[in-house]
Amino acid sequence: MTQRVAILGGGQLARMSAYAAYRLGGEVGIVARPTDDSPARLVASEQFVGDWSAPALLDAVADYADVVLLENEFIAPDILRHLEATGKTRVIPSAQTIALVQDKFSQKTALAQAGLPVPRFAAVASPEEVLAVSRQFGLPLVLKCRTNGYDGYGNELIRGAADIAPAFEKLLRRGSPLMVEEFVPFTKELAVMAARNQRGEEVIYPVVETIQHAQVCHTVLAPASVSEATARSVAALARQVLEAIAGVGVFGIELFLLNDGEVLINEIAPRPHNSGHYTIEACETSQFENHIRAGLNLPLGSPRMRSPVAVMVNLLSGFDAPAQPIGLESALAVPGVTVHFYGKKLARPGRKMGHVTALGEDLGETRERALRAARAIAI
Amino acid sequence: MTQRVAILGGGQLARMSAYAAYRLGGEVGIVARPTDDSPARLVASEQFVGDWSAPALLDAVADYADVVLLENEFIAPDILRHLEATGKTRVIPSAQTIALVQDKFSQKTALAQAGLPVPRFAAVASPEEVLAVSRQFGLPLVLKCRTNGYDGYGNELIRGAADIAPAFEKLLRRGSPLMVEEFVPFTKELAVMAARNQRGEEVIYPVVETIQHAQVCHTVLAPASVSEATARSVAALARQVLEAIAGVGVFGIELFLLNDGEVLINEIAPRPHNSGHYTIEACETSQFENHIRAGLNLPLGSPRMRSPVAVMVNLLSGFDAPAQPIGLESALAVPGVTVHFYGKKLARPGRKMGHVTALGEDLGETRERALRAARAIAI
Repeated sequence: MTQRVAILGGGQLARMSAYAAYRLGGEVGIVARPTDDSPARLVASEQFVGDWSAPALLDAVADYADVVLLENEFIAPDILRHLEATGKTRVIPSAQTIALVQDKFSQKTALAQAGLPVPRFAAVASPEEVLAVSRQFGLPLVLKCRTNGYDGYGNELIRGAADIAPAFEKLLRRGSPLMVEEFVPFTKELAVMAARNQRGEEVIYPVVETIQHAQVCHTVLAPASVSEATARSVAALARQVLEAIAGVGVFGIELFLLNDGEVLINEIAPRPHNSGHYTIEACETSQFENHIRAGLNLPLGSPRMRSPVAVMVNLLSGFDAPAQPIGLESALAVPGVTVHFYGKKLARPGRKMGHVTALGEDLGETRERALRAARAIAI
Repeated sequence: MTQRVAILGGGQLARMSAYAAYRLGGEVGIVARPTDDSPARLVASEQFVGDWSAPALLDAVADYADVVLLENEFIAPDILRHLEATGKTRVIPSAQTIALVQDKFSQKTALAQAGLPVPRFAAVASPEEVLAVSRQFGLPLVLKCRTNGYDGYGNELIRGAADIAPAFEKLLRRGSPLMVEEFVPFTKELAVMAARNQRGEEVIYPVVETIQHAQVCHTVLAPASVSEATARSVAALARQVLEAIAGVGVFGIELFLLNDGEVLINEIAPRPHNSGHYTIEACETSQFENHIRAGLNLPLGSPRMRSPVAVMVNLLSGFDAPAQPIGLESALAVPGVTVHFYGKKLARPGRKMGHVTALGEDLGETRERALRAARAIAI
């Protein structure tokens, strides 16, 4: 029988997951909001468009879907609990895991309780509490929204006491409780994708290096140039993270590598992750296919790289206008590069409109090709 | 501006082409008939469903599409000429190429006139003419429908004079004029994918071996185990074929390898081809992506293999019933195998419901894995 997969969200992660679901014989229902610029709706076999808190919409999704997946963690857990309570569909990851992960304070608390290495952190309810923590942790500090932060939105760096009040006020406007974390003087940012199905089978992808520009992921180098020991320790951490959050599905785990070789866990995304896009071309099984396989409780596929190295570069738009990609021709003329456009109708400065992945033997040469292709394109 | 691609036909070739079109930032309109079991419609951004000879439908397609592609050659050339005459869209391959290729007699005539090696052939209008040709070419002979034949439908083997009348009568019922060809005692059947864009850039994929069961493609071995000289001569023939048929788009070229090393061209398919499915995982650029790139007149991508060998095995249904795939779990447990289901609702004995591709280092071992995965699945 055809398996029906519903995905909460209609962005590029849903769209790339949909391709994998179709290939495995599934059908795909995209759950979107009327105002969304939803590139995944173009490829959907069914669409559920409306207010996600409306029980009628959720009941229709539950009637449709064998499994409900999601492409971002900014979903009220009650929505997921409603879907679970229908008893008609599976929700992966579970409402419990999403509730735990989407609040960065409860996420970090769970990781710390499991003995995993995280930066020092504390919940804060007032500027005075931030000041008190700053005396304990030292400066600089990072003030963060506990929920709904992404790509640098919802983070402020506190360099001195004078920064506290304005940063606090600014972030409070985002409507989320706040927390602080010690500032980590990392030498590299790393990431790793991990997947687990309901039977407990796990796969851990290679550790990669992520390079952010203006706090948005710009380049991913796979594998990361780190020692064997670091790669092994990141893989071991990834397995422990899955355990700590009772994670079923795919998860992107961001980490900091410190000068002394220590690794700290930065953040967990309970879904396919920008740092895992390289897996489409570079690995035996993509993160999107394992997202679907975990959802359908199928055996997970090997995360082994089929190419010595891969470099992914995001295509970020520079304009606030209808999307009008140019330069595809020049980009495709670069050898060994695959171009992915997401089909978004509206550009915004810094919005992720697509990505390119280059495969090769040598990291420097491959990165040069990926950048050349990415720079050829303007959206 | 978003490029809009219309595909005439809603089967697996359209569906796999659609994934590539989306990735390149396009939108996809699927043109299907109301009675079709059209798996590509599930992934379409627009659908045009109706009688293809209705000018209103074709005008709507021409208004929508920057380019019209096709997934099979059984399309009345007048339909393509109507689309071309609107001046609003490009048709690739051209009506002229399709008209030439879809009639196997005119196809072979064009190849022979270009000096390309083909089996001896002749048009025949009566059983008496078949008998006359049999005296010239010898027996056995193959009696063929000039149009609308595929997967062995529309071919009859003439072993002796007594076979002629019943075969002639049987094939005549298919409504096509007939032709005969000498029977070629091949040692292997080979195939090669070739692509050309409007600027005349060409790519030729590796030559593969195809193994048919009951005249339906069952297994494809990539690359074919043939001498360097044979591989070079097939690639050269492929370039000459593109020239001879003024081909723009992707083309599957089937060939016979004879005992003495000679190669004869069997048939040309003016579209993605079953023998090219392995390119999705095994090549730097898949046949489907080059189908779209050729249609949009983008630079073609490299056909180089990223894996030493690849083996594709078709998933053919054994039943005449609604499709109910089983065994996906076991198939996915085979390492290094990708499973593609086409999403067809109805099974028929011998219908192509999906395929699996295995990648590896050694042809025998890889073939064993591909067969193991394919045999695990029943549809």
